[in-house]
Amino acid sequence: MIKIGIYGATGYTGLELLRWLQRHPEAEIIWLTSENSAGQKFGDVFAVPPTLGRHTLIASAAADPSAVDLVFCCLPHGVSLEPVARARRAGARVIDLSADYRLKDPAVYEKWYGHAHSQPELLAEAVYGLPELHRAEIAGARLVANPGCYPTSVILGLAPLARAGWLAGTVIADSKSGVSGAGRSPSLKTHFVEANENVSPYNIGRVHRHLPEMEQEIGQLVTGRLGNGGTGNPGAASSPQPADLLIYQSTNPPIYQSTNPPTYQLIFSPHLMPISRGMLSTIYVTLPEGVSEAQVREQYEQMYADEPFVYLLPRGQVATMGHTTNTNFCAIGLTPVPGTRTLIVTSSIDNLGKGASSAAVQNMNVMFGWPETLGLK
Amino acid sequence: MIKIGIYGATGYTGLELLRWLQRHPEAEIIWLTSENSAGQKFGDVFAVPPTLGRHTLIASAAADPSAVDLVFCCLPHGVSLEPVARARRAGARVIDLSADYRLKDPAVYEKWYGHAHSQPELLAEAVYGLPELHRAEIAGARLVANPGCYPTSVILGLAPLARAGWLAGTVIADSKSGVSGAGRSPSLKTHFVEANENVSPYNIGRVHRHLPEMEQEIGQLVTGRLGNGGTGNPGAASSPQPADLLIYQSTNPPIYQSTNPPTYQLIFSPHLMPISRGMLSTIYVTLPEGVSEAQVREQYEQMYADEPFVYLLPRGQVATMGHTTNTNFCAIGLTPVPGTRTLIVTSSIDNLGKGASSAAVQNMNVMFGWPETLGLK
Amino acid sequence: MIKIGIYGATGYTGLELLRWLQRHPEAEIIWLTSENSAGQKFGDVFAVPPTLGRHTLIASAAADPSAVDLVFCCLPHGVSLEPVARARRAGARVIDLSADYRLKDPAVYEKWYGHAHSQPELLAEAVYGLPELHRAEIAGARLVANPGCYPTSVILGLAPLARAGWLAGTVIADSKSGVSGAGRSPSLKTHFVEANENVSPYNIGRVHRHLPEMEQEIGQLVTGRLGNGGTGNPGAASSPQPADLLIYQSTNPPIYQSTNPPTYQLIFSPHLMPISRGMLSTIYVTLPEGVSEAQVREQYEQMYADEPFVYLLPRGQVATMGHTTNTNFCAIGLTPVPGTRTLIVTSSIDNLGKGASSAAVQNMNVMFGWPETLGLK
Amino acid sequence: MIKIGIYGATGYTGLELLRWLQRHPEAEIIWLTSENSAGQKFGDVFAVPPTLGRHTLIASAAADPSAVDLVFCCLPHGVSLEPVARARRAGARVIDLSADYRLKDPAVYEKWYGHAHSQPELLAEAVYGLPELHRAEIAGARLVANPGCYPTSVILGLAPLARAGWLAGTVIADSKSGVSGAGRSPSLKTHFVEANENVSPYNIGRVHRHLPEMEQEIGQLVTGRLGNGGTGNPGAASSPQPADLLIYQSTNPPIYQSTNPPTYQLIFSPHLMPISRGMLSTIYVTLPEGVSEAQVREQYEQMYADEPFVYLLPRGQVATMGHTTNTNFCAIGLTPVPGTRTLIVTSSIDNLGKGASSAAVQNMNVMFGWPETLGLK
Repeated sequence: MIKIGIYGATGYTGLELLRWLQRHPEAEIIWLTSENSAGQKFGDVFAVPPTLGRHTLIASAAADPSAVDLVFCCLPHGVSLEPVARARRAGARVIDLSADYRLKDPAVYEKWYGHAHSQPELLAEAVYGLPELHRAEIAGARLVANPGCYPTSVILGLAPLARAGWLAGTVIADSKSGVSGAGRSPSLKTHFVEANENVSPYNIGRVHRHLPEMEQEIGQLVTGRLGNGGTGNPGAASSPQPADLLIYQSTNPPIYQSTNPPTYQLIFSPHLMPISRGMLSTIYVTLPEGVSEAQVREQYEQMYADEPFVYLLPRGQVATMGHTTNTNFCAIGLTPVPGTRTLIVTSSIDNLGKGASSAAVQNMNVMFGWPETLGLK
Repeated sequence: MIKIGIYGATGYTGLELLRWLQRHPEAEIIWLTSENSAGQKFGDVFAVPPTLGRHTLIASAAADPSAVDLVFCCLPHGVSLEPVARARRAGARVIDLSADYRLKDPAVYEKWYGHAHSQPELLAEAVYGLPELHRAEIAGARLVANPGCYPTSVILGLAPLARAGWLAGTVIADSKSGVSGAGRSPSLKTHFVEANENVSPYNIGRVHRHLPEMEQEIGQLVTGRLGNGGTGNPGAASSPQPADLLIYQSTNPPIYQSTNPPTYQLIFSPHLMPISRGMLSTIYVTLPEGVSEAQVREQYEQMYADEPFVYLLPRGQVATMGHTTNTNFCAIGLTPVPGTRTLIVTSSIDNLGKGASSAAVQNMNVMFGWPETLGLK
Repeated sequence: MIKIGIYGATGYTGLELLRWLQRHPEAEIIWLTSENSAGQKFGDVFAVPPTLGRHTLIASAAADPSAVDLVFCCLPHGVSLEPVARARRAGARVIDLSADYRLKDPAVYEKWYGHAHSQPELLAEAVYGLPELHRAEIAGARLVANPGCYPTSVILGLAPLARAGWLAGTVIADSKSGVSGAGRSPSLKTHFVEANENVSPYNIGRVHRHLPEMEQEIGQLVTGRLGNGGTGNPGAASSPQPADLLIYQSTNPPIYQSTNPPTYQLIFSPHLMPISRGMLSTIYVTLPEGVSEAQVREQYEQMYADEPFVYLLPRGQVATMGHTTNTNFCAIGLTPVPGTRTLIVTSSIDNLGKGASSAAVQNMNVMFGWPETLGLK
Repeated sequence: MIKIGIYGATGYTGLELLRWLQRHPEAEIIWLTSENSAGQKFGDVFAVPPTLGRHTLIASAAADPSAVDLVFCCLPHGVSLEPVARARRAGARVIDLSADYRLKDPAVYEKWYGHAHSQPELLAEAVYGLPELHRAEIAGARLVANPGCYPTSVILGLAPLARAGWLAGTVIADSKSGVSGAGRSPSLKTHFVEANENVSPYNIGRVHRHLPEMEQEIGQLVTGRLGNGGTGNPGAASSPQPADLLIYQSTNPPIYQSTNPPTYQLIFSPHLMPISRGMLSTIYVTLPEGVSEAQVREQYEQMYADEPFVYLLPRGQVATMGHTTNTNFCAIGLTPVPGTRTLIVTSSIDNLGKGASSAAVQNMNVMFGWPETLGLK
């Protein structure tokens, strides 16, 4: 049983995290913060049963990170920078669900997020929290940067190909997300009447902030810095220089340009769906000449055979959002297009599950040495 | 062909009104106002085709009501008071879609809306714009107060019973509305993730502001001031004193209390549905001893036989939202409960159609002497 | 750890049951039946993760009830009659999720369901599985008839009033249900395009088969046969058998008529919502003269204070579907209408949760003497 | 005023067609057929107002095509073959909304639809009913094959590029459709609970029957056979017949293989959205080296400047489903990806509007020499 504090508990990732932690046998909630709702009960902010709603929210200034073993930070990017540093200074381990500690290079962070990274020294200890790529590092980490939802669906969909060195040319990820990914702050875009009975592309054309995250992680796989050949053991890369793959010349949005050109180029197109939760990425890859369907499938099976939360669908099946709703799973379908070299990968997660809060619990399990599926089945 | 100006065109009733007017052979749009979007095109505010989007929005101060024959006012209640008066002073006829000119008694208005009515003298000339009850008055009106969506569905559902003197005891209207009824301003309640996959009662218990409107109109029918006996000719009531039925003792919300007790009491319960547009009221009435199903049905048929936009469903059918979506119709089903004196009336309208904008066009047709269905089929 | 078999596992209640049982520490699935999909994996029938999908379905003839401790029967009404009897003869305890064993009187069953009850002798041992009313009986039961979803929401909403003897006159339950309540067999009514953006009343007017269930249980409370945890007035009527309250003269639908008139009459109006799961009943009751809001609230608090899965919302709040989605909870709001004797009770459950499958797990917990919340938090 | 008959009026395209025709000043409905509902009113089959519902349905055998000027055929593919031929023999002009007369080559039809084309001689006179490509032919046509919804969105999205000779390599169309595209016959896939809160790819990998339609029309543009309103490079290939581009080696599904390889290859991935109506195609094209954004935009503007129902969104905007709901418009957005040669085209139509029934009305207007926008504004 460990003691847990949560910064920023009143967004959707906070709510979802609390739901998962409530079922977890080793988790004891000590404090939950909310600047706007301090003094209220969690049940005053969300329509939830009393078992979830009984916790009283406090201001983050009143939260003592030294009183807990683990801090989850569910604040927005930018806002997370300081509280995470504070928690680390107090000795607590931290899982940050924002984007603030995901990018290794503070210059890349600054270009995409529009402000300097105030804690660059912490970036060195931050581990990108995708156990399928970084399990060993997460186990020993003090600070885990929980991946974004889009990156999780795209990286898991492409990782076996990247490892095999089969990514080349233009790779297209046409991603569909539920509205909860946009957070709980009301806006016209997320107003019911605007989102309902509608489908909207947004931030397409390599301008979405989740793109550098994808490129950082896939880049490490491509260059062999993050394991290769499907050994299943990512290994401890000693000199990661993901920046090679991620030099951007300008801002708002940075334009991708590399001195050391990557072998592939990722086009990522997010779409808003009239759905509360769920995420599906339809990914189009041109396979190298001579790579067979059987080889592709074997590559995926090899990488994910022992993964508790990634499963490959049988031949002929495609992943749908429904495959993973309310779970911590990622479901992957492989559809080679007959007569062409195109492979269509369908990758489904729940954007609040494997794309956020249950993934954070999975990271917690890895960090504390518990069975990885504890409380997540 | 008449010239038309619209105050507050960038809400959902404005958008819907423009859609209907675009198809109307006698309507020419002269100006559209928006304080927040003045200078922009209508198509910058809504994702609409260029035929709708080409109009440029202006500030209301720049709009000249004397340059048009008819002004539609789509502003929120409270905000409509002044522009309507301005348009009337300029000589334009006005159809106001807000609640500002619906209640005959300024004291009732003040109690329910929390501020004094700034134009009480205009209330005398305002006609409640439900052609099924006030057709003759609307024809000659300079100022028409377009009814609220809930009142339209409930009043049309109950009017034949009220006229017949068959309303008594507790009458329950359990109403279900699409989210567009809440307007276009983002809020937590109308945030997609909160409204989707959810059904919420709100403002139940006689506190919703549409209640006094219902009571005013039904009260006039009950007391015979507004025609009676199903003549179909509402007549010109000379001394309406709806206030008799609507004396409230206190505010926020006013508590219903009458010195001259009404014969019935209306309980109105609105519910928010995860739907963009549509409205269904399920209304429960206890019929007087001895009134047969055939008599009830005849009463409805008599009142609505010649109405172009109200239709009675055959015996055994209930009204659903789908019966009226995107139309100016009201569909009514009558379901007597065997072995009891309870009658269930199901009344369906589109809250943006017969509940707002197409009803306003119907009023325009009546006011200008055109066929009532012009542009509305 | 007990061994469990499930008849008819490939409907929505079966799927939901399996989800809950998977998390339950004492449940081991031995067999799942499906006539149409025998030989297939559960994961071939539903898009679910492999942890859920790994079970192989068998025909019911191949299922051995003597090999398990507990049988859940998720078959449709009528079809459940025989398998339940077979399981009982084999010595297994049974929780039947159909309507087949809910009505005490086989004549009432025959009138509402259109065929004779083939196992009338088993009705004597069947216990109506609402722990809030029948906890002690369920603990010892061999056969539990799991309540219908509508009855659960309405009975729990009315039980404290019934016990207090405060039900009189016409009681109206306007209920809203998600589409999963209609099962998984495709039909025009549940076709996406027909149900989406629509709200439809159906089977209103005392013809829905869930009505006799409600009357049976509420009738027992009214007549004081079913305990009286409250102060109040348990009602004077000592002699009327439940059947007194439930004599129907004709069929299809039976018309309610009582020789010994009940003190109240329930009007139940189900509505189909464009929602996958969830249920909300808005219930209208006329309280006896002199009963105060405080007394009403105390009556509910007294009855539900120790209930693990029923919670009363604070004064001023109403129950919404969202309060209970994906849980085994029932949330109840009390809204007295100022200046009237009308009380509006809002009662929310998840129709697949407390309205079906998690309720069945709760019954299992009671039957096997485990903590009632085991696996259900 | 022309006389109109409709075969197969009780599907969604029939309903939608009737809605548009009702508003059309030159259309008079003479008969509507339905095999299943012959003898019933249209209003018995759909919940529609009496103005729409008054028509009585007849069996197709009872329908006299010689009594009308124009027949719309809204039957499923395969079933349309004979009635269309019958109507043509009777001298009526025909607009067929099925796929039966869209493919020029009966061998291609047979390969994709699994049965021989019974009326190959009629294929010669059939015109593919996309006025933006075939306006002049449609004007004189006796038989118009109304395009499929997916083809309309993809062809209009790609036509300016095809004309300019700028299609090369792999072209990806990731399309999203509302459920009404699947018709009105209930199925598990279109069951509310299965489709709601879900997004599903289906028939991806060049196996969807709308693919050959797209290739036929785009192929004609690429090879310059179909006019060249643009500057650009109409493509050099002078000899390849369309069939060259469409030789399939096997069936179920045919595998694309060309003896005379096309310059581009279309990957088409349909996805089912939890939406009643609407369609969005996100199309990814690699532009030839040196083609600028300005040139691309000019090419689209040139082709669509005078089109009444296709509009180009301003720079920086993307098409959403909402842009075209309930209209006959196609909205197109152009998003070049900075630093790459990728162009993302977003193309939106209403699948029941420009994707089916209002497009059929547009074709009718062209055929009968009326203003193309008559009744369609």
